[in-house]
Amino acid sequence: MKKSRQGNREAAGEGGLGVWLIGARGGLATTLVAGVELILRNKTSRCGLVTETPAFAPLKLRPLGRLVFGGHEVRKGSLFESAMEIHRDNGTIPYEGLLEIREALDAADTRIREGTVMNCGDAIRNLAGKKIRAKHRSLAEIVKAITADLEEFRRSTGVDRVVVVNLASTEPPLNLEPAHKTPTGLQRLIKNDVRAAMRASGLYAWAAIRLGMPFLNFTPSNACLTPGHVKLAMKKGVPVMGNDGKTGETLVKSALAPMFKYRNFRVLTWQGYNILGDRDGQILSDPRNRRSKIKSKDGLLSHILGYPLNTHVSIEYAPSLSDLKTAWDFVHFQGFLDYKMSLQFTWQGCDAILAAPIVLDMVRLADHAQRRGEAGLMTQLACFFKSPLGVDEHDLHFQFHHLMAYLDT
Amino acid sequence: MKKSRQGNREAAGEGGLGVWLIGARGGLATTLVAGVELILRNKTSRCGLVTETPAFAPLKLRPLGRLVFGGHEVRKGSLFESAMEIHRDNGTIPYEGLLEIREALDAADTRIREGTVMNCGDAIRNLAGKKIRAKHRSLAEIVKAITADLEEFRRSTGVDRVVVVNLASTEPPLNLEPAHKTPTGLQRLIKNDVRAAMRASGLYAWAAIRLGMPFLNFTPSNACLTPGHVKLAMKKGVPVMGNDGKTGETLVKSALAPMFKYRNFRVLTWQGYNILGDRDGQILSDPRNRRSKIKSKDGLLSHILGYPLNTHVSIEYAPSLSDLKTAWDFVHFQGFLDYKMSLQFTWQGCDAILAAPIVLDMVRLADHAQRRGEAGLMTQLACFFKSPLGVDEHDLHFQFHHLMAYLDT
Amino acid sequence: MKKSRQGNREAAGEGGLGVWLIGARGGLATTLVAGVELILRNKTSRCGLVTETPAFAPLKLRPLGRLVFGGHEVRKGSLFESAMEIHRDNGTIPYEGLLEIREALDAADTRIREGTVMNCGDAIRNLAGKKIRAKHRSLAEIVKAITADLEEFRRSTGVDRVVVVNLASTEPPLNLEPAHKTPTGLQRLIKNDVRAAMRASGLYAWAAIRLGMPFLNFTPSNACLTPGHVKLAMKKGVPVMGNDGKTGETLVKSALAPMFKYRNFRVLTWQGYNILGDRDGQILSDPRNRRSKIKSKDGLLSHILGYPLNTHVSIEYAPSLSDLKTAWDFVHFQGFLDYKMSLQFTWQGCDAILAAPIVLDMVRLADHAQRRGEAGLMTQLACFFKSPLGVDEHDLHFQFHHLMAYLDT
Amino acid sequence: MKKSRQGNREAAGEGGLGVWLIGARGGLATTLVAGVELILRNKTSRCGLVTETPAFAPLKLRPLGRLVFGGHEVRKGSLFESAMEIHRDNGTIPYEGLLEIREALDAADTRIREGTVMNCGDAIRNLAGKKIRAKHRSLAEIVKAITADLEEFRRSTGVDRVVVVNLASTEPPLNLEPAHKTPTGLQRLIKNDVRAAMRASGLYAWAAIRLGMPFLNFTPSNACLTPGHVKLAMKKGVPVMGNDGKTGETLVKSALAPMFKYRNFRVLTWQGYNILGDRDGQILSDPRNRRSKIKSKDGLLSHILGYPLNTHVSIEYAPSLSDLKTAWDFVHFQGFLDYKMSLQFTWQGCDAILAAPIVLDMVRLADHAQRRGEAGLMTQLACFFKSPLGVDEHDLHFQFHHLMAYLDT
Repeated sequence: MKKSRQGNREAAGEGGLGVWLIGARGGLATTLVAGVELILRNKTSRCGLVTETPAFAPLKLRPLGRLVFGGHEVRKGSLFESAMEIHRDNGTIPYEGLLEIREALDAADTRIREGTVMNCGDAIRNLAGKKIRAKHRSLAEIVKAITADLEEFRRSTGVDRVVVVNLASTEPPLNLEPAHKTPTGLQRLIKNDVRAAMRASGLYAWAAIRLGMPFLNFTPSNACLTPGHVKLAMKKGVPVMGNDGKTGETLVKSALAPMFKYRNFRVLTWQGYNILGDRDGQILSDPRNRRSKIKSKDGLLSHILGYPLNTHVSIEYAPSLSDLKTAWDFVHFQGFLDYKMSLQFTWQGCDAILAAPIVLDMVRLADHAQRRGEAGLMTQLACFFKSPLGVDEHDLHFQFHHLMAYLDT
Repeated sequence: MKKSRQGNREAAGEGGLGVWLIGARGGLATTLVAGVELILRNKTSRCGLVTETPAFAPLKLRPLGRLVFGGHEVRKGSLFESAMEIHRDNGTIPYEGLLEIREALDAADTRIREGTVMNCGDAIRNLAGKKIRAKHRSLAEIVKAITADLEEFRRSTGVDRVVVVNLASTEPPLNLEPAHKTPTGLQRLIKNDVRAAMRASGLYAWAAIRLGMPFLNFTPSNACLTPGHVKLAMKKGVPVMGNDGKTGETLVKSALAPMFKYRNFRVLTWQGYNILGDRDGQILSDPRNRRSKIKSKDGLLSHILGYPLNTHVSIEYAPSLSDLKTAWDFVHFQGFLDYKMSLQFTWQGCDAILAAPIVLDMVRLADHAQRRGEAGLMTQLACFFKSPLGVDEHDLHFQFHHLMAYLDT
Repeated sequence: MKKSRQGNREAAGEGGLGVWLIGARGGLATTLVAGVELILRNKTSRCGLVTETPAFAPLKLRPLGRLVFGGHEVRKGSLFESAMEIHRDNGTIPYEGLLEIREALDAADTRIREGTVMNCGDAIRNLAGKKIRAKHRSLAEIVKAITADLEEFRRSTGVDRVVVVNLASTEPPLNLEPAHKTPTGLQRLIKNDVRAAMRASGLYAWAAIRLGMPFLNFTPSNACLTPGHVKLAMKKGVPVMGNDGKTGETLVKSALAPMFKYRNFRVLTWQGYNILGDRDGQILSDPRNRRSKIKSKDGLLSHILGYPLNTHVSIEYAPSLSDLKTAWDFVHFQGFLDYKMSLQFTWQGCDAILAAPIVLDMVRLADHAQRRGEAGLMTQLACFFKSPLGVDEHDLHFQFHHLMAYLDT
Repeated sequence: MKKSRQGNREAAGEGGLGVWLIGARGGLATTLVAGVELILRNKTSRCGLVTETPAFAPLKLRPLGRLVFGGHEVRKGSLFESAMEIHRDNGTIPYEGLLEIREALDAADTRIREGTVMNCGDAIRNLAGKKIRAKHRSLAEIVKAITADLEEFRRSTGVDRVVVVNLASTEPPLNLEPAHKTPTGLQRLIKNDVRAAMRASGLYAWAAIRLGMPFLNFTPSNACLTPGHVKLAMKKGVPVMGNDGKTGETLVKSALAPMFKYRNFRVLTWQGYNILGDRDGQILSDPRNRRSKIKSKDGLLSHILGYPLNTHVSIEYAPSLSDLKTAWDFVHFQGFLDYKMSLQFTWQGCDAILAAPIVLDMVRLADHAQRRGEAGLMTQLACFFKSPLGVDEHDLHFQFHHLMAYLDT
C-alpha cells in the first residue's frame, strides 16, 4: 500500500504540487522532505505546521500527500546520506523512520539537479563540487539551464504547479543599482553578462518567475528578490515573497517587544547573541555572508518600539551545537521612576525543525494564492519572515492576525 | 512656586480626583504617591504610565497634578518613613528626591485612616498594630467606619470623585456561597455579622460601591469583588474591576504564550518559579495566602493555548531580594517531527515599580469610565490583570488591542 | 571476534569483577551496562569515566572488559526493552549501537533476579510487578533470598569479587533508632521481623556486607548504610560508601560555592529549582520520597560557606523532560559596600549519563580498595556523593584532591 | 572625632601606607577610596575584603585606617563629583554616606596629580583634558615628572611606604621587542625617546620601581610590566604583580572549569559574552583596546582543561548598564556515551565593587611582601589576576590554596 501511494503520488500529476527546493540536500530541505514522508506514514504528528490548524481547513490547501519534491543542489551526496548525517548530528530524524522512508528519499533524489554558485562568495563556492566550481557559463547560459531543469520537473512529474523556494546558504549582500529596479534592467544585466551585479539566487528567481512559478526567498540574500524581480512577478501574475525565515530568536523578539510598548516601558538595550553549528553557521562565520543575516535580524526592534535603542546581534559558529541553535537575549528597560529592570531569555531550538514546517506552510499558501489569481508580494505571509518585503509591521501578533484576516477574504 | 502648586492642588477640589489607597503606606502605595510627586517636580520621566502615551491624549484624562491621595492602613509609621525604607532596600526612590517631596508625603499622611484586618488571616493580622488587632467591631460597624472615612475624604478635599483601590496584602481565598451572589445576600451577611463569610477587602469594596466610588481590586483576594459586589456596582452606576495586577512573570507569559500558538508548537511543560523578598513575599510565604496568588497565576496558559499542559508556579520568599522580584520560567515545547525544544526566561523587576503606574492608569480610566456613565466591570482594563473579571481572553495582545479599541468608542 | 571476546569475558571468571546492580533494568543501570558494551566495541569514547584519566593508570584498575553485570529488579521487562525506551525518550543510546549490543544485554538479563520492595513506600511499591507485591516474606527470608542470589551470581560467573550498588528508587527517610547503631541491633530487627524498622535497601546492604561484598549506596535512602551496617563492614573487612551520587546541580554548587568564600562575598540566598521527568522524578513527586532527596541536596552550602543562609531546593516532575534534568540556581550575594549582586546558572544534563560513569568509577575503586585490604567507609570517594558518609568536607575541589592524594598512597 | 581621626591619619606618617592610584578619579579608584572611608565610619561591612578574613589575621596587615590615598589622573573633576556620578549611575555608594565622607574625599583630591596619556591610543587620549593632550614632553621628562609626584607624595604624607597601582583604562597591546627584556633596554628606549615602544603605564611602573615602590598592574595593558620592568624589580628589591584583575566572568570560569576536569567531561564549546556600560566599556569598544582584554580573558580555559576547545569571548558596550557588568556564558560539554549537555550562567555584578576590595587586598599584601624582604613577581597573588605573571596555573582553587599556603610560610 505504501508503494502504491508513493507511486500514485508521482504518477498522478493531476492534483500534484511540485516543490522545487534550492539547496535540496541541505539540512532544511532534507528535514522537510523526510518530515513529510514520516507524517504520511503516521510516524510523527503534524506539529509545527500552521496550515494544519483548524483555521486553515476552509482553504482546502493542497494535501501533503500531493507534494512532489525536486530541486537544485551544488554539493555531492544523496538525500538519504544527508538524512543520516542529520540523524547522527541532531537526532531529529529517527533512525528507524529513516529506514522506512529511504526509498522515498531516493526517489526524490532522482529529481535533484546541479545548481550554480555564480558570484556567491568563497564560503559558498567552497561547498560546491569541483565540477561545478570549474564551470564557466555566462549568466544567460545559467538561466537557460535552470529554466530547462524547472520545465523538465514540471513536465516529467505532471504536477499542476511548481513552487520554487530558495533554501541555499546566505550570500553576501549585493549593492542594488538602478538596473535592479526593473525587469528590463535585470534582463540587460543577464544579457550583457554583468556577473558582479547578479548572484545565483537572483538567477533562480528570474527563471522561476518567468516560468510563472511562485517563488519564496527563505534566506536573507538580497540579490534574490530585487524590485525588478517583484515587478516581473506582478506582470507575470506570479506570487512571490521573502526575505529570511523567522524561526528563532527573531521570532521571540517580535513576540516580546510589543509587551514593552503596551506598558510604556522604555527599552534601553537589547543584545542578542546567537550560537549555531550547522553549515549555515559555518557560512555565516564568513563576515561577508554574516552581514546579510545581521542586517535582517537587527532592524525590527526600533520598528516595533518606535524609537532608536542600543541593539546588538551577533552570530557565532560553534560546531559542537550542530543544528541546535542557542540564543541568549538580554533586554534592559526602564519603568516608573526611570528604574532599570531586565529580562533575559535563552532559546534552544533546532533550526531545520523550526524552519521546515513554515516552508511547507508558505508553499501551500503560495499555491493557494496563485490559484486565487493573486500576484506580486504575498504580504499575508509577513509573520514567517524576518524582513517581510512590502511590510512595515514587525509585531508578530499584528502579522499573525493579518494572516488570519486574509483567510477570511 | 512648589508650595503654591502643592497648595493649589489640595485647595482646588474642583477638578480634583481623590485616590483612596487601601494599604496606603505599603511599598506600592508609597512608590505611587512618591512617583507622582517626583514626576510633578520633573525629577523623573512618565515612563511606565500607559495613559501618558499619545493614544490616550484624546481622552483628556485627569492630569496627575489633580490627583489627591488618601487611604486606609493597618500598620504604624509615615509615608516618609516608608519611602526611606524603600530607598534603603531597593534604591528605587532617590534620596535627594525624597527630601524634596517630604512635605507632600507628610500632607498625604494626614489623609490616611486606620484600616481593618477583619478575617484576613494571621499573616496579615500580625502586620497590624496592637490597637487595631484589639478592636472588636461588628461588620456593620466596620462598614460604617469605612464609609465615614471615605465621605470625609471626599468632603474635606473637595474632589469631584474618589476612586478606591485595594493594594492590601493578599488574603486567603474565601469560599463563595450563594449569599455572595447578590447585593441582598451580602447585605444580610453584614447585618447578621457573619464574620467567617466576609473579609476586610469585601467590606472596603462594599462601602465604596455604595458611595458610588469606582473600585479596583489590584490583589488576588477573591472576597473583594464577589458577584454580589459587581451587581451592586451595576445598580449604583459604579465602574469596578479586578483581580490581581499583571506586573511581571504573568505579563511575560501572556505576551509569549500566543507565539507558540501562532506556530502550532505544542507546549508540553511550562514551569514558573518566583522569588521575592518584600512584605508581599512574606505574606505569601504563608501557604493559605499563597493559594490565592498561585491560583491567579496558573490558569492562563491553558486558556491561551487551548489545551491542558503540565504547568507549575511557585513563589518563594527570599528576604535579600527585597522588592526585586526574580522569576525563572522554563518552557518545553514540541515542533516539527515532534522534536522537543526549550525557551527559558529570567525576569528581574521591581514589584512596586511595575505596579504603581498601572494603578495610576486604571484610576484615571475608572474616573473616565464613570464620567462616561459606564457601570459594572471595566473589561477594557483586562490587560492590567492576571484574572480579569468577566473576560476569558488572556492573550496580552488581544487585551491591549481591546483597550485601544475602547479608546476609539 | 566480538563473539569470542564476549564469550571470553563471561567464561573467564579469573580476573573478572562482578557488578551487582540493585535496580538492574532502571535507566541508570541500563545506560551503564549498554555504555560499557558500546565502549568495548569502540562505538563511543570513555568520556565521563574519571578512572580512565592518566592519573589512575598506575592503579591498574580492573579493565572494563572484565566487568560482569547482574542484579536485582522489581519491574518486568528486559534490558533491551529498557534500552529501547531510553533511546526513544532521551536519544542517549543510539539505535544502531543498540542492535549491535542486543545479545550482550540479553546475556546480562539472564543474570537479573527478582528484588524486594519491603517497606519502600507506595510510590516504589506501585512500580513492582503484581507477583512481587503479593509476596509476604519475613525479613529473614528476604535476606536469605538476596544472599542466595548474590552467591549464585559469584559462583556461576566465576568472578573474583562482586561489588554491589544500590541504584533503586529513593525510599522515604527512615527514623534511625538505637537498634540501627550496631550489627547486633540490625541482626535482632531482622530476626524479630521488625518490618517498620527496615527497608529493602538495608536488607540488600546487610546481605552483601555479610558476604564480604563491597557496597555502594548511590541513592539518598538512609535505611541503606546505617551505622550498624558500617560497623559490620569494618568488622568483615568490606569497603562501603554512600550516600547519593553527586551528578548535577549539587555538583555545580559544590564547585561554585567555594568561589564566594575565596572572595569573602556573603551569600544571602541560594535557590535551586530542579525539573526532571524520568522514573526517578515520578518517585520524587511523592512528598515522602522527596524528603530524602532534598535533605541530601540542601545541607552542603552552609557547610562550605561556614554560615547559615537562606536556601531552598525543590524538585518537580515534568514528564516531557524524560531524563534530561534541568536545574536553575539563583545566587544572591553581597560584596564590597554591601552591594548585592547575582549569579544564576541553568544546568541541562541527562541524569543517567551523568551517573553511569561515576558508578563504574566507584565500582572499580571499591574493588581496588578491597584488594588493598581497606575496610569501612571509602572517604576518598567523597567527591562522588552529595552526602558523603564520614566526611564533613563538601567543597568539590578539596574532595577531588583528596581522591588524588589517595592515589598516591 | 571624625576630624581628629582624619587628621591623625594624614599627619601620622609613621605606620601609614601610601596608596598611589593611577586613574585616581576613575570609577574603581573612587569606589575604593569611598569604600575605605565608609568602612572606617562603620557605614558598611568589610565584605569582599579577603584580607579581613580570619586566615589573614596573623599577618598583622596594615589597618585600613592607616592607608593614605593619592594618584595620577588625566581627567578633570573631583573625587566627590566622581562619587556622585557613581551614586547616580549605579547606586553603589549611598547618598547619605557620600555627604559624610565628602571632606575625606576632598582631602584625597588634593593629593591627585596630572597624569600622562603618552601613546595610549585615541580612545584614552580623548578622555584627557585639553591641557594634557597638548603637552609635548619627552619620555625622560615624563618619567621625571612622575618620579617627582611620587616622591612628593611620600614625603608630604610621611608614610612608611608607597604602593602604586595601575587602574587606568586598558591600552592597546604593545609589540614587545628585545629592548623590553632588560632594564638597560628600557632605559635606552626612554633616554632615546622611542615613544612608539613605550606607553604611559610602562612609564609609571618604571618610575615606581626605580623608587623602590611595589607596583600592581590591575589592567591587561602589557606595556606596563614588561620583562625588563620585572628584572628591575628583582634588582631593586621591589615586589610587583599583574596582569588584569580577575573580577567577574573570568573568576567564575576559573572556579567552574576544573569541575569538568574532575568528571572527565570534555568541554566542546565555551562562549562568553560580556556587556558593560562604564568608561571601561567605552574604551573597550575601541577594537584596539579590546584586543588586550580579550586576549587576557580567553586563554585560561585550555590551560585548565589541558586541551584545545572552541572558545569565544566578546565584550560589548551598552551604556544603560553603567558599571553593572552582565555576562552570559554557555558551556557545551560531552559526557558518557559522548552525550552532549550544557551549562549556562549569567553573572550580574558591579565592576568597581568587585575590583575595589581585591585592589586593597593586594596593596596590603604587597606592603607585607616588601616588609618581608620579597622582590619580583608576587605569584601568591595569582588568584586575583586573569593573566598572573609567572604563573601557569589558572585553576582558582589551586591559586587560592597557593595564597593560603603563602600565609603559613
